[in-house]
Amino acid sequence: MRILGIAGSLRESSYNRALLRAARELLPEGVELVEHDLRDLPFYDGDVEAAGDPDSVVAFKEAIRDADALLIATPEYNRGVPGVLKNAIDWASRPPATSPLRGKPAGIIGAGGMSGTMRAQYHLRQIFVFTNTLVMQQPEVFVARAAERFDSNLALTDDAIREALRKHAAALAAWTRKVK
Amino acid sequence: MRILGIAGSLRESSYNRALLRAARELLPEGVELVEHDLRDLPFYDGDVEAAGDPDSVVAFKEAIRDADALLIATPEYNRGVPGVLKNAIDWASRPPATSPLRGKPAGIIGAGGMSGTMRAQYHLRQIFVFTNTLVMQQPEVFVARAAERFDSNLALTDDAIREALRKHAAALAAWTRKVK
Amino acid sequence: MRILGIAGSLRESSYNRALLRAARELLPEGVELVEHDLRDLPFYDGDVEAAGDPDSVVAFKEAIRDADALLIATPEYNRGVPGVLKNAIDWASRPPATSPLRGKPAGIIGAGGMSGTMRAQYHLRQIFVFTNTLVMQQPEVFVARAAERFDSNLALTDDAIREALRKHAAALAAWTRKVK
Amino acid sequence: MRILGIAGSLRESSYNRALLRAARELLPEGVELVEHDLRDLPFYDGDVEAAGDPDSVVAFKEAIRDADALLIATPEYNRGVPGVLKNAIDWASRPPATSPLRGKPAGIIGAGGMSGTMRAQYHLRQIFVFTNTLVMQQPEVFVARAAERFDSNLALTDDAIREALRKHAAALAAWTRKVK
Repeated sequence: MRILGIAGSLRESSYNRALLRAARELLPEGVELVEHDLRDLPFYDGDVEAAGDPDSVVAFKEAIRDADALLIATPEYNRGVPGVLKNAIDWASRPPATSPLRGKPAGIIGAGGMSGTMRAQYHLRQIFVFTNTLVMQQPEVFVARAAERFDSNLALTDDAIREALRKHAAALAAWTRKVK
Repeated sequence: MRILGIAGSLRESSYNRALLRAARELLPEGVELVEHDLRDLPFYDGDVEAAGDPDSVVAFKEAIRDADALLIATPEYNRGVPGVLKNAIDWASRPPATSPLRGKPAGIIGAGGMSGTMRAQYHLRQIFVFTNTLVMQQPEVFVARAAERFDSNLALTDDAIREALRKHAAALAAWTRKVK
Repeated sequence: MRILGIAGSLRESSYNRALLRAARELLPEGVELVEHDLRDLPFYDGDVEAAGDPDSVVAFKEAIRDADALLIATPEYNRGVPGVLKNAIDWASRPPATSPLRGKPAGIIGAGGMSGTMRAQYHLRQIFVFTNTLVMQQPEVFVARAAERFDSNLALTDDAIREALRKHAAALAAWTRKVK
Repeated sequence: MRILGIAGSLRESSYNRALLRAARELLPEGVELVEHDLRDLPFYDGDVEAAGDPDSVVAFKEAIRDADALLIATPEYNRGVPGVLKNAIDWASRPPATSPLRGKPAGIIGAGGMSGTMRAQYHLRQIFVFTNTLVMQQPEVFVARAAERFDSNLALTDDAIREALRKHAAALAAWTRKVK
């Protein structure tokens, strides 16, 4: 089983990229996680789309299509989904009838802020209703006060979070087998 | 009174740009509306910010600071705020203590979809709680089935929407005087 | 397969009760829908709960437990879930570890207002993440301008809505078989 | 200035009632807070309303009308507004044209859960857009892990929360003077 990991941040030392890396070590047997970087995607623009998807968009859609499931690690910017991540979803959702997001199982996790990106995660869940992406309900993973959970090399040092990630990954694999 | 108009779409023939243009003709005496284009803003990236705001970001923040109020015309992409618009807010919100969004009066309108961008507008409202942007509650403007409201030159042809825009603009001017 | 129908309104001539009745005629072979009335539930009160669930609460929880899936028809009051319906969920969610809502497949539909209860449905979806209720993503059913869709006997007269209900019911049956 | 305090819980030893009591001691000069109990309100039912508002509903609407502002202390049940509180708002919102909630300044605070009722507060804010209730944006008060903030007599023992409450009350008084 192949999971596509998407971190909603461009920052080099992003806690959400670090969270995905930590998750990669905690996957159940037979599951792999490949990360896709959002850096090369342009801003969504209906005029650009009408002229044909740019290469980076084609590659992003293919990466989603090739994956059995998505694992999205989202920061929270201003109580919402970062523009960078929402923009990537805006591209992937087009056109609706053939979007690779349709019917794709997904898990959502996130690191940041006082609430562990709770509000960003809820915005994402609403967005994924429209795209018919099959987001798992529980267990949720909210990594609050991220700076205390990772060391200076961005390795996850918090055992409770590690255990929560392991459970999330196992549940996502089971959910994927069930709903795919 | 100077209102900064922001349309959350890059598309040339965007209904939301057209909505802002229509609003410009319906402002109360003594109020002007200037549009700011989001096209030149890069993706928010903490590393880029740390190296100093790019010129387009400086200009965007200044435009907000110079305005008495904001009028945001948002499309709805996948039941949420377009990545392009959220990204612009992510830049403008930084750093929180000196963000030009703090205490700024704002109105939200939008054109698109079956619900007239209702869900995108609610996401925006939640985002603006954090930035302490003083969004007016009522009257709301939801332009559903936008293609039927504008002609081929993107001139607004729907009198009910025109009247709703006029009321929104008048209320925003009054709200701005009150809360500024 | 037994579906428990819950309408979030107490009004005799409620469009949402009428919507459930219409759905009952459109179920796939082998599926039945039984309605549960919320009228007898008291307000949730931790002190009352500590003294033992009232009979009406016991009966409501059992009805959920006995059902293979839920079909919730929600009005929208003030852009949110009616207090009556939220109160019923508050009871059914307790205590979390043994709540009959956990893992229960569910569909959400609704009649009312200009948007067809869209915002109430999104609040419900957020609530059901916490209770781990497995709400189907698509197809959604939003019945706007309900007064035009039903006759004076509250029979559904709109063929497009009828077809949407039929598809929703069929999809809910398939979803229930998949995720249960 | 008279503030009407509304706690969204019926439980005797509710942390949110305790939070309102604590706020009462921290009001600016010249401001008083009177609590209104929701216990006597029936469930909203359009048929009951059509026959005339019950006495408890009349009293609740009058209490809102007589107040200069509202201070709502909400628990979070299942990531949303308690049914009890939403039901009270459903009554007070009727009929929309003469609802005492229209134009009424309001503050929202809350105690409970891991996030301090953040999600319930955001649902409330969305509801109050429709009722045109003028909710203050900042400062927000989220009392997480409430059991650690109050002693066995439900007196607030956390100085940081006390200070946050004091600032919220002062800001609400200033906001009320501005927008009323």
